[in-house]
Amino acid sequence: MRGPGARARLRLPAFMLLCCAAPALAEEPAKARDYAIDPIPLTQTEIADGFWAPRLATNRDVSIGHAIESCRRTGRIQNFAVAAGLAEGKFQGRYGFDDSDVYKVIEGASHALRLAADPELDRQLDEIIAKIAAAQQPDGYLYTAGQIAEAAEAPYCCVSKPRWADIQGGHELYNAGHLFEAAVAHAQATGKRTLLDVATKYADLLTRVFGPGRNMAVPGHEEVEIGLVKLYRVTGKQEYLSLARFFLDQRGNAAGHKLYGPYSQDHAPVVEQSSAVGHAVRAAYLYSGMADVAALTGAEGYVAAIDRIWQDVVSSKLYVTGGIGATHKEEALGDRYELPNRMAYAETCAAIANAMWNQRLFRLHGDARYVDVIERTAYNAILSSVALGGDRFFYVNPLASDGKYAFNADRSTGRRPWFTCACCPPNVARFLASFAEYVYARRERDLYVNLFVAGGTRVELAGQRVRLRQATQYPWQGEVTIGVEPEHEAEFALHVRIPGWARERPVPSDLYRYLDGGGRPYTISVNGQPQTLELVKGYAVLQRKWRAGDSVTLSLPMPVRRVVSHDRVAANAGRVALERGPVVYAVEAVDNGGSVFNLVLPDDTELSAEHRPGLLGGVSVITGKALALFPSEDGRSVVTREHALVAIPYNVWSHRGEDQMQVWLPRRVSLDFQIP
Amino acid sequence: MRGPGARARLRLPAFMLLCCAAPALAEEPAKARDYAIDPIPLTQTEIADGFWAPRLATNRDVSIGHAIESCRRTGRIQNFAVAAGLAEGKFQGRYGFDDSDVYKVIEGASHALRLAADPELDRQLDEIIAKIAAAQQPDGYLYTAGQIAEAAEAPYCCVSKPRWADIQGGHELYNAGHLFEAAVAHAQATGKRTLLDVATKYADLLTRVFGPGRNMAVPGHEEVEIGLVKLYRVTGKQEYLSLARFFLDQRGNAAGHKLYGPYSQDHAPVVEQSSAVGHAVRAAYLYSGMADVAALTGAEGYVAAIDRIWQDVVSSKLYVTGGIGATHKEEALGDRYELPNRMAYAETCAAIANAMWNQRLFRLHGDARYVDVIERTAYNAILSSVALGGDRFFYVNPLASDGKYAFNADRSTGRRPWFTCACCPPNVARFLASFAEYVYARRERDLYVNLFVAGGTRVELAGQRVRLRQATQYPWQGEVTIGVEPEHEAEFALHVRIPGWARERPVPSDLYRYLDGGGRPYTISVNGQPQTLELVKGYAVLQRKWRAGDSVTLSLPMPVRRVVSHDRVAANAGRVALERGPVVYAVEAVDNGGSVFNLVLPDDTELSAEHRPGLLGGVSVITGKALALFPSEDGRSVVTREHALVAIPYNVWSHRGEDQMQVWLPRRVSLDFQIP
Repeated sequence: MRGPGARARLRLPAFMLLCCAAPALAEEPAKARDYAIDPIPLTQTEIADGFWAPRLATNRDVSIGHAIESCRRTGRIQNFAVAAGLAEGKFQGRYGFDDSDVYKVIEGASHALRLAADPELDRQLDEIIAKIAAAQQPDGYLYTAGQIAEAAEAPYCCVSKPRWADIQGGHELYNAGHLFEAAVAHAQATGKRTLLDVATKYADLLTRVFGPGRNMAVPGHEEVEIGLVKLYRVTGKQEYLSLARFFLDQRGNAAGHKLYGPYSQDHAPVVEQSSAVGHAVRAAYLYSGMADVAALTGAEGYVAAIDRIWQDVVSSKLYVTGGIGATHKEEALGDRYELPNRMAYAETCAAIANAMWNQRLFRLHGDARYVDVIERTAYNAILSSVALGGDRFFYVNPLASDGKYAFNADRSTGRRPWFTCACCPPNVARFLASFAEYVYARRERDLYVNLFVAGGTRVELAGQRVRLRQATQYPWQGEVTIGVEPEHEAEFALHVRIPGWARERPVPSDLYRYLDGGGRPYTISVNGQPQTLELVKGYAVLQRKWRAGDSVTLSLPMPVRRVVSHDRVAANAGRVALERGPVVYAVEAVDNGGSVFNLVLPDDTELSAEHRPGLLGGVSVITGKALALFPSEDGRSVVTREHALVAIPYNVWSHRGEDQMQVWLPRRVSLDFQIP
Repeated sequence: MRGPGARARLRLPAFMLLCCAAPALAEEPAKARDYAIDPIPLTQTEIADGFWAPRLATNRDVSIGHAIESCRRTGRIQNFAVAAGLAEGKFQGRYGFDDSDVYKVIEGASHALRLAADPELDRQLDEIIAKIAAAQQPDGYLYTAGQIAEAAEAPYCCVSKPRWADIQGGHELYNAGHLFEAAVAHAQATGKRTLLDVATKYADLLTRVFGPGRNMAVPGHEEVEIGLVKLYRVTGKQEYLSLARFFLDQRGNAAGHKLYGPYSQDHAPVVEQSSAVGHAVRAAYLYSGMADVAALTGAEGYVAAIDRIWQDVVSSKLYVTGGIGATHKEEALGDRYELPNRMAYAETCAAIANAMWNQRLFRLHGDARYVDVIERTAYNAILSSVALGGDRFFYVNPLASDGKYAFNADRSTGRRPWFTCACCPPNVARFLASFAEYVYARRERDLYVNLFVAGGTRVELAGQRVRLRQATQYPWQGEVTIGVEPEHEAEFALHVRIPGWARERPVPSDLYRYLDGGGRPYTISVNGQPQTLELVKGYAVLQRKWRAGDSVTLSLPMPVRRVVSHDRVAANAGRVALERGPVVYAVEAVDNGGSVFNLVLPDDTELSAEHRPGLLGGVSVITGKALALFPSEDGRSVVTREHALVAIPYNVWSHRGEDQMQVWLPRRVSLDFQIP
């Protein structure tokens, strides 16, 4: 490990002494003021369960390499070489934001390097980063589509314009944000400053170009705010935080630029916004940036605004899978209760952004309801986007499919290796690579268990090292044992999240409800002693003097549960979805006699769960005797037959051919015939 | 009328002495070589029936004025004033081709002026044309989006490029074609040369810019070829014809330009093309231009190519309504047999272009099968696009609707007053204004009755004036009486079309067939004497010495007929459509108890027609006792009930609110459930 003296402006926290497969750079508060609650750094948490561990290993061993190779094959890396003058050629690709795919995969790969040494991956990143650094212009500017003169012939206007000429439609600032995130992650993982120097040089340029009395425009696609905050945290450079805040405060301020309107959340000042509108990824990155700046500055009104907007989302714009952004048109959030299933957009990147935003809200408020959203999104909307094999991806994540409609980008019906607009695959790679940071969190003398994942963590708390061990078969079983191992006896509060789904409702609103009313008893005990506790913000708070060998046992009820929607969700009228634990289920044709749109699931059908270790990597299925409709032989009437229903987790659908699938089943016979 | 001496290069034919509500300019063969068959000029044909006459009157009295006013309201006319420097302002609108909407409405209005004097309309056209003339640049160039400097900020690339910089994606040449068509029509109608001078000045510029050894690119959107041919016919200027041919021959020739690919029919030389591909309007305008140039030059291979392409269309890409261009994506022709109903694009302009192309094929080949397509298209796909009131339009013409899906441009579910991309309303206005030219046609001693429309025509034939009178209640009744009135006894052949639908098949292919096999007897008699004739190219050819008072009586069978599709049309599998005469029927929710997707029409259901004078301007409906499916009370099964089916002509659907509609009904119960 290189000593901190070599990079004077970087802050290295105490807990870095504990861990670290590679030399690391901390992302730690640069000032006293920041989020109340911190995640536990990646390297301190172990994921050793049967559910996430294989997916994360596939992400590390397949998806990250696949994304790097795809960036290479499609010219995304070559574009940097061409912009640098190291190679000849035109801009390859269609979009100015293609650079960001490279940055995102560097970020994901850096997380992987942080967790385990991988000299070949390290070398590949160095080679790519060298091209990026070479492409950077002397004053810091970096945008290959704009730099490559031949790009003027590319089919999109955005790439042929001069610098900053299209802050609304172009993606210079968006790319910059991802560059900054990647640079921080790479420096943290490797201790190397190459990419961080590129990032700070570019950020310095931005602080000279944008700001009060200078260019007053705001990015059309938010993201740079998040990146600037991360750069600020590792460099302490106040200008970065100020610029992030400037961009936020200028949104909706017509004095500085011609407003872009709701598509870019630029229709009103952010502190006056109350509903989630426009392009879903832009929206959730904006709200994430607002949370960051609020945490760091105490900026007034930001938190109230994102709290209002969050209420709007969870009460009317959140799919039962945790996805957001209902409409194909403009990849946008729909109207309240506009949640179509077959035509759902529910972009993978939007689900990831939703998780990022909720993580920030949790860190602000310490409330488990935000983790309820994260858990639902992670287990369903995000995980479904990547195939079990790790090299096929959904961009669009519908909740019903006829196996034919080409709902996905590139007009495909199944997961695809890559996309012309390839934001999602590297985004899911970086999300999964950082997944461990969603499991636990801490505040001075508080330790949070947010997700239930076998493995453990270690943290500096109450003046000493504390280890936690989780043993559980979650999400297939509801028993969780948490072993607490402080070095010495120590008093602190262990906050064990009691999921919303285990209490009364699927999401923190009345958008969905359980037909059985929810609320079956869960139990929690310490060293075998059942505890009766009032939950605090959704947590069982176990405040005591902990000793090595203490053990907490949580038992969550795991019945199959029927979910119904708010009456105003037209797409789900008369329909029911199935859940068990945090997992949302779907029916596929292959398990159900070749079709699913003829199935009816009456409320009195008994349902049970059954674990099938050999199916789709090992999943619990839901079975029951439902009804199926068939035409009579004479074609003049309809026959109802008993049907052996099989539902699988939505997160593994579309692995056995492209055919019919749906999440929401009719509770009674209905005659919504398809129009050919 | 101004004498022909005033315009030495314009040819005035003899028949112009017969007619002419306004001074006119003929579109007549400039050379010996041209189409074998000519339509009868507009002014010589009277439409006096109960079906078309009211629609054409509405077109004249409402639609044309509505289109002019809409062009004015949306800045399309002002753009010319701004380009001329007569007014200040930016380019209004989104598309460089907005100019063409003005040209098309001038063309339609000119047809109307030709048929009946209208000083106010004449004055309006003069005022608009004065702006157009003023906008023209000294060397002839005219493209307001390109000329108005502020257009550089318009959201589409095409409008901010220098002249000819985007021949593929821009619309300078497309606009030019419509300008030329409008100019010829206006001069023919009014004898005024103002617009014709603009047109020839622009055409002269084109001949200097494009051609062998000069700019070798071809228009991305075909249309200028048709316009150049029309200009050539009235001016005799060979260069115009040569340029049209040059553009056609350069298509698919990679030596002259980088090929645009199949979307613009620029993937292969036109003489090597065999299937209809790409943007449907572009395609059918191309094929029309090829027919024109082939007729005028005998260009080898053109006719063989469009004959092959026509076979491709009628055998696999033609909706039963006569529409073409199945896919929303790229407004394009789909794959063979790709004919979705709800998601049909079937753009109004493509139907019109299809009629234009088939009229040219008829003029080349003299075969009634092309008129079969024209009739089907005119009575169904085209007529459905304009509301009975004349001021609401469909851009997209689906064959099924749930009353909710916003299939139309501007995301509307019903007809709209206008569109941002407004090609269709002025196109249907000009089509209807010229509809009379589709009814009759002539060749030296041959007179064709192509469509059955009460009224008549007069024509110079066999050295004298001949009048025809048609009396019929077509399309509601199959009896047609044709009175023949030559001035003196004269021998010529009267070709009376026997529609394909009255013989064995809906369209000239096996794409659709009648369940009853078709082929019920029609009868034709002359002066009461039944005639037994072998049809020649689909016509009953009555060759005789005609005397005043001779009368031909045609009796076409008018049963309700069930149509089924070729097995490979997946969207219509197991389904049947209803026709009677040339009219295709549809079921709407309002007539059928509030829903139509639960209806089943077994093959043994007796169907009958019934005229309802008070319904939708007076239509014949089809009724019968079909089946309807409903959920049982307990929601566990489906009940079949007898249902009193009512079907209305497709061409008047969507006049009583937006609700369910479909053309193709299941013949047996099927369970294609809709996915919400």
